[in-house]
Formats: sequence, structure tokens, C-alpha cells
Amino acid sequence: MQIKTVIHILGFLLLFLAATMLLPIPFSLYYGGGDHLYFIISAIITFIAGFLSFKLTRLNREMRAREGFAIVTLGWTSFSLFGCLPFLLSGHIPSLTDAFFETMSGFTTTGATILVDVENLPHGLLFWRSFTHWVGGMGIIVLSIAILPFLGVGGMQLFKAEVPGPVPDKLTPRITETAKILWGVYILISALEVIFLLFGGMNIHEAFCHTFGTMATGGFSTKNASIGHYDNAFIQYTIIFFMLLAGTNFSLHYRFLRKDFTSYRGNPEFSLYLLLITGATLLIGYDTFTNHFPNIEEAFRKTLFQVVSILTTTGFGTSDYEQWSISSQFILFLFMFIGGCAGSTGGGMKIIRLFVLIQFVRTEIKKLLHPSAVIPVRVGNTVIQREIVLNVLGFLALMVGLFVGGVLSMSLTGLDLVSAFGSVAATLGNIGPGLGCVGPTDNYANISLVGKWILTFFMLAGRLEIYTVLILFAPSYWKK
Amino acid sequence: MQIKTVIHILGFLLLFLAATMLLPIPFSLYYGGGDHLYFIISAIITFIAGFLSFKLTRLNREMRAREGFAIVTLGWTSFSLFGCLPFLLSGHIPSLTDAFFETMSGFTTTGATILVDVENLPHGLLFWRSFTHWVGGMGIIVLSIAILPFLGVGGMQLFKAEVPGPVPDKLTPRITETAKILWGVYILISALEVIFLLFGGMNIHEAFCHTFGTMATGGFSTKNASIGHYDNAFIQYTIIFFMLLAGTNFSLHYRFLRKDFTSYRGNPEFSLYLLLITGATLLIGYDTFTNHFPNIEEAFRKTLFQVVSILTTTGFGTSDYEQWSISSQFILFLFMFIGGCAGSTGGGMKIIRLFVLIQFVRTEIKKLLHPSAVIPVRVGNTVIQREIVLNVLGFLALMVGLFVGGVLSMSLTGLDLVSAFGSVAATLGNIGPGLGCVGPTDNYANISLVGKWILTFFMLAGRLEIYTVLILFAPSYWKK
Repeated sequence: MQIKTVIHILGFLLLFLAATMLLPIPFSLYYGGGDHLYFIISAIITFIAGFLSFKLTRLNREMRAREGFAIVTLGWTSFSLFGCLPFLLSGHIPSLTDAFFETMSGFTTTGATILVDVENLPHGLLFWRSFTHWVGGMGIIVLSIAILPFLGVGGMQLFKAEVPGPVPDKLTPRITETAKILWGVYILISALEVIFLLFGGMNIHEAFCHTFGTMATGGFSTKNASIGHYDNAFIQYTIIFFMLLAGTNFSLHYRFLRKDFTSYRGNPEFSLYLLLITGATLLIGYDTFTNHFPNIEEAFRKTLFQVVSILTTTGFGTSDYEQWSISSQFILFLFMFIGGCAGSTGGGMKIIRLFVLIQFVRTEIKKLLHPSAVIPVRVGNTVIQREIVLNVLGFLALMVGLFVGGVLSMSLTGLDLVSAFGSVAATLGNIGPGLGCVGPTDNYANISLVGKWILTFFMLAGRLEIYTVLILFAPSYWKK
Repeated sequence: MQIKTVIHILGFLLLFLAATMLLPIPFSLYYGGGDHLYFIISAIITFIAGFLSFKLTRLNREMRAREGFAIVTLGWTSFSLFGCLPFLLSGHIPSLTDAFFETMSGFTTTGATILVDVENLPHGLLFWRSFTHWVGGMGIIVLSIAILPFLGVGGMQLFKAEVPGPVPDKLTPRITETAKILWGVYILISALEVIFLLFGGMNIHEAFCHTFGTMATGGFSTKNASIGHYDNAFIQYTIIFFMLLAGTNFSLHYRFLRKDFTSYRGNPEFSLYLLLITGATLLIGYDTFTNHFPNIEEAFRKTLFQVVSILTTTGFGTSDYEQWSISSQFILFLFMFIGGCAGSTGGGMKIIRLFVLIQFVRTEIKKLLHPSAVIPVRVGNTVIQREIVLNVLGFLALMVGLFVGGVLSMSLTGLDLVSAFGSVAATLGNIGPGLGCVGPTDNYANISLVGKWILTFFMLAGRLEIYTVLILFAPSYWKK
């Protein structure tokens, strides 16, 4: 481990974080929440930590996978540690456990909250809370498109070919170029959403906060009733549309913006994504239309909203889906695991892995009937190498194992089974609201202290494709 | 499809079934339940069906995998169809759905019952009900050791080397030889259990019925309170011991009887089996000792009984585990999926597949750190081929998919989530009692008509390693 290189880069990232801590100040001053002072103090502390880390170490150009994993995991952790300072110092979230949980939930784009009354928070803190989502989303896009495919995590090698920008041998210059391109796309679509939301009647503070929550598939809202607060079809459809975009591979958006108008149509992952949304909306919509919303447009909108919100792992809400039928709830529960497309800001196992899994099972059945035939696994026209299929399956196995371990741990803290399933699924999949006592009308305030730390770990592991975090616990990682 | 060969063999099997239908008659006559007539009628009907099928067709010696799958699946189905005649004709289970469910539950060694008051059944029918378990168990041992490994189902090729008896090219002679050896072992251990249970104070009828339920890891009892009826530590420890044997690969018993006394010790699957039982007994025992049974021997015995009963997928009960803590219930719920060792009468995914899965995930993590290294998956000292690892993973993926589909279907029939999870897990894993409204103190009587048929299908699919049944639904199976 080149520990100095890791600290050097972390220092650089903290300097960036310190700068962003000044952004909420205009809102603090305008709305007069009295929280601007705490942002200045937090920024100074973060700046000093970042400056020292950066100055006292230096970069070794020959970075390996080992260092990559450490930077990513420690990056998210240190952002959450420093990012929770404004909540902690202002006394609005006085417990370190709660503040760290809330900030990790922000940076991992989860959207699980321990706040009982969000509307009680000053506007500066609300802005910061949502902004952590947006920063986390920026990190995730680059991580999943430009970094993980080259570290070979969980079959992400699949996307090597799709990475925009130059593909030289060294990691650093490619990351820089690709990041610039993807962030351009991310900022452009975010700006569009802000405009739409302003047009729909939100004020500038609300429009920014909800755009951050949407584009990062995060889910923090400035309202206790989430998007249900806005009884406004235009706003709800706008957010549905941008959640859909946020759950799509950003490489496709990039190619579309470069005038490759077939980018979406030719992509098998995107097709399956739309198929899942359509299928679930029809199935659940039948239930909500017959039992909950007699108006067909309302039934369609509220069902589609919830389906997209959960599949993209955003976690915004317009209705209490725990009132819907058991089968509808179960479909939403399954969607918590699937998540968005790879290369999007969505969490979960990613649609492409579901695709590979389905194709793999089909070829296994065929092989039983034709034992001597060689039947490759295909995604669209591409033949997937055996090793990548194994990587994908290994990832899924690990995810199931982690889920099982999580439910067991949470049930040991005294949670009932439905809540244990719901809370682990909602944090591992980076959704936010789950089922049971952490359902859409509840929050994570009443989870035990130990439970909150467990779930914080699950948010991080889920967000960083599991391996990236777990590998730090492997004895062989630290050898030599 | 050589449909005539399939019917010919099914006819032969039905002739065997018809003969066994005469076995309960001594008990009918001795206890005077008046049910002997129905066994005679059932035997005649089954004999005629078998005789016609056998005589009007002839065997084509060149059987392929295709015919193998059909014989196995249709064999279990037709046994359940004819085997339910005594229940149906006697009027003790007047509905075909219920009678078929109960009999399929018997032959698949599941032990799920729709009977509210078992003790109300005549002794002949009770004997028949338990005897279906024992016949099912005979079938499973031969299927899993002598047939499926050669059809390449779900990684069962792993066991090719372990099959006792001659290994010629043709399927039929080897099956015959291996079957003789394994059935010898099965009958010997069963006889031992009967003697022990008689010694413990059971009468001959109870001793036979409970031996059938134990050795097949079935779980049908002649008492409403299952083994809890016998407040007798000797009987309970005896059943624990024989459930343990029934959940072990019968090749190991064979080798042990051939004086290879290291057969158990050197087997990695058997070690993991004991490790799981020990670990779960300690974890759950801590809960039951502190909260339910102040006597440490009783806490140990009742915990061990439930752990072994569920891991081996037997489903006998001595206490209501739904009163235990959520984490204890969750461990038992997980064990429903794991099941016994391969080549045992136990259901579930089998310990060996869990073993391969764990080893596979470990190698995947190692590979991330050493991208260029070739790290094979090992079970003990044996290197597992990549293709077999893929088969195992494909099996597990299919099992998860089937489970998810099952829970969704059962929740559509109106079941709550816990009961839907519990009923599908308990039938797919061939355990019997599940959670919620099909828990250890309940039964399947109140499941809807559609629900019962779905669960009947799951018992069959779970018992026959899923592929064997599902393959009949693949379009390419019927081609050419």
C-alpha cells in the first residue's frame, strides 16, 4: 500500500469539499436560518485537514488497483465525516452517529434520513443535505464508468468499450478526461431540471434541492411529505422524467448529445430498464387503480412515480406504498435490489447484471439439452466472456450474502423481520425508504445505535459495488 | 422424445407402486379403521394403469437425457396421482387438490400437510401417508447419486467420482447396480431406527411411520404435536441422530459400512454440515436457554432438534420456533434454503453448493487483488472445473428466481409477506412447516386452491433439483 499516495489524493478531494461548503451560505443569509457561521467553520476545518494531507505527502505516479480501492472507500468515508460537521456544529443533528448516518446517506445517494421533521431545518442545511447527493452522484458516474471497469469489479469490465474519452494505459489521464465529459452531461441535465422545476412553481431553493435529489437518485427532499407535498402533476412528471434519465447510463446521454440518436434504442440494458418499468407500472397500476386512486391519470402517475423512484433507487415518494397490496409491495421490494442501469447514478445490482443473469440461466438450460454444444452468453450481439459472467455471478452471490448477513444483524438488534428486510434492502440498494418501521411514511430515527452503524456500512458497501469496500477487509489486501 | 420408452418405464414403476399399496392393510385390519378396502381398490386401479402402460409399449435401449428428465418428473407426478387414491376414495381427504397436495408432499419428502387433525386418520392411511415419504426417499437417493450427475444437472457432475458400483457407458445397468447398493444402506439404517424407536417406547405402527418420516427427511407424523407428543428425551435424541444420518450423503454411509472409517472425516461437505449445525445450535440455543427453556439439557435438545430438523429439511417439531427471537427464526429460515448434503434424502440447495459458492466468492475477491493470477475454486483438495462452478451458480440463480416468482404468486393469492416467504421456502426446500400462517403450529389447510397447486409445483421442482422439471417447459426440449 502506497499510503502516502492515498492520503495525498484524499487531501486534494477534501480541499474540493471545503470549497463546496461555502455554497449553502447565500441561502443561509437570504432565509436567515443563522447557519452560515457553521458552514464557514466546517469549511475551515475541512480545508486545514485537506491542506495538511495534501502538502505533507506526494503522489506516486505508479498507482495500482490496491490504492484505487482505498481512495474510493476512504474518499466516501472522509467526505461523510467532514461533511457532517455543519449538522453536528449547528446542533441540528447533535449525535455523531445520526449526523454521520445522514451525511453518508447523502454522499452515497441513498436518501435514508434520521430526521423526523425535515422542514424544521434551516435552508442552508437543507441545501447542504441535498448537495451531498449531487456530489455523491458526480463521484459515482466517474467511478462506475471510468474507474471500476479497469479494476475489474463485479463484471464492470463489460463497459470498458463504452467509456468516452481517450483510453491510454495509465489510469489518471483517462479518468480526468472522462470525468470532464461526464460531468458536463450531468451538469447540463441538472440545469435543465432546475429550469423545469422553476417553471412548475418551485422556488429556487426547492428547485436546486430536488434536482440534486433527482439527478443523484438520492431522494432527500426539503418537505416532510417528499414530492407528495407538491400536488402538481407537472412537477411530478418532471421528476419522473429526470429520475429516468438519472437511472440511465450516462455514456448513452453523452452519445446522444454527440448526435448519435440511436444510442438509447440499440442498448439492451436500456430496453430491459424500460420493460421493467412498463411491466411493473401495469401490474401495480391495476392494483392502485382498483383499490386506491379512482382517477386513472392519478393512478398511473402515482404508480409510475413509485416504480421509477424505487427502480432508479431515488426514494422520492408521492404515496404510501405500504397501503398497496402485498404483491405490489413485493414487486417494489424486488426492484430495490435491481436498481438503475450501470454507469448511472442509480444503486442496486444494476440492470445489466440482471440481464447477464437471465441470459446465463437460459444458456444453462439449453446446455442440459445439448451437452456437447458451446452456447455463449450474449447481451445484444455481444458475446460475454465466461470470466465476466463469473464476475457478475460472484458479485450477485456476494450481494445476497451481504444481504443475509445484514438482515441477521438487524434482527439481532431487535427489529422485526419485515423491517429488517426493508432496512437492509433500502440501504444496500441506496434507495432510502424501505418497508416496515423504515417505510415511506417513517424514518430511521428509531433504529438502534448499533443498527444505524450497520446500515451506514451497508450504504457505503452498496454504493461502491461491494467489492471496493470488502476488499479492504481481506487479509491478502494488506500483505507485502 | 421417445414417448413409448417413457410410458413403458412409468408403467413398470406403477406396478411397483400398486404392490406397495397392499402394505398398509395389516395395520388397517389390526386397528380396524375400515380403510383396507380402499387400499385394495387403489392397488387394482394402479395395477391396471401400470400393466397397460407397460404392455402396450416397449423399451428403446438408447435412452437419452431427454427421456431421463421426463421419466423422473412424470414418475413423481404419477406416483402422487395414483398414490392419493386411498385418501380420496376413503373420503378422508375428499378434495382432489388436497389429496394430491398431501401425496406430493409425501413422495417429495416435504411433509407439508393440509390435515388439521392427523390423529383422526385411520392407522392404515397414516401408514400409507408416511410410507410415501420412504418411497420418495428411495427415489431421491438413486436420483441424486446415480442419475442426475450423469445428466449434468446443477453441478451434480461433482459426484460422478463418488458413485458406488460399476460405471459403464450405458445408463441403465449402472442405475440398477447403484440402486441396489444404496437401497441396502437405506433399509439397514431404517431398520436400526425402527429398533431404537421401539426401544424408546413407541408401538410398531408409530415406530415405522416415524422412521419413514426421518429417513426420507419427510416430516409427516402420526401425532398432531409431531415429535413434541413424545416427551421422551431418548426418542427425541434418536430422531435427531437419524435425521443427521438421513441428511448425509449415502455414499459416505456405504463407504463406512465397507469399513472405510475415514469416509465422514475426510469429506468437506460433511464438515460444513456439522459446522452449520453446531454454529446454529449455539446461536439459537443462547436465545432459547435465556428466554424459553430454563433447563439447559432441554434447551440444548429442543434447539438441536429444530436446527437438525430444518437443515435436513425433515420438518418434525418439538417446539413452536415462531415464539423464539426474530434472529433465531431468521437463521432457521436461511437453513430452509441450504438443506442437507448432496446424495442424502434432504432437500434445499444442498450443502455442497453452498460450499462451492463460498469458495467461489473467495477466489473472486483474491482475483481482484491479483488480476493476472489463476486461482481455482477448490473443495477440499479437489479443483472444481470452471464449467461446474457455472452450473452450480446457474442452479442457485434459478432457485432464487423460482423463489421470487413463488413469493410473488403466493402474495397475489392474498397471503401476507411472511407467510408467502415461509410457504414457498418450506415447499421449495421440501421442509414442510414454514413461517406465518403455515408455521410449526399451523398447516396448509387454509391456503387457497390456487395457492395449493402452486405449492405442489414447488415441492416437485424443489425435490427434483429444479432443472429436471423446468426443462420440460423449455421450447427446445420438444423440438426435433
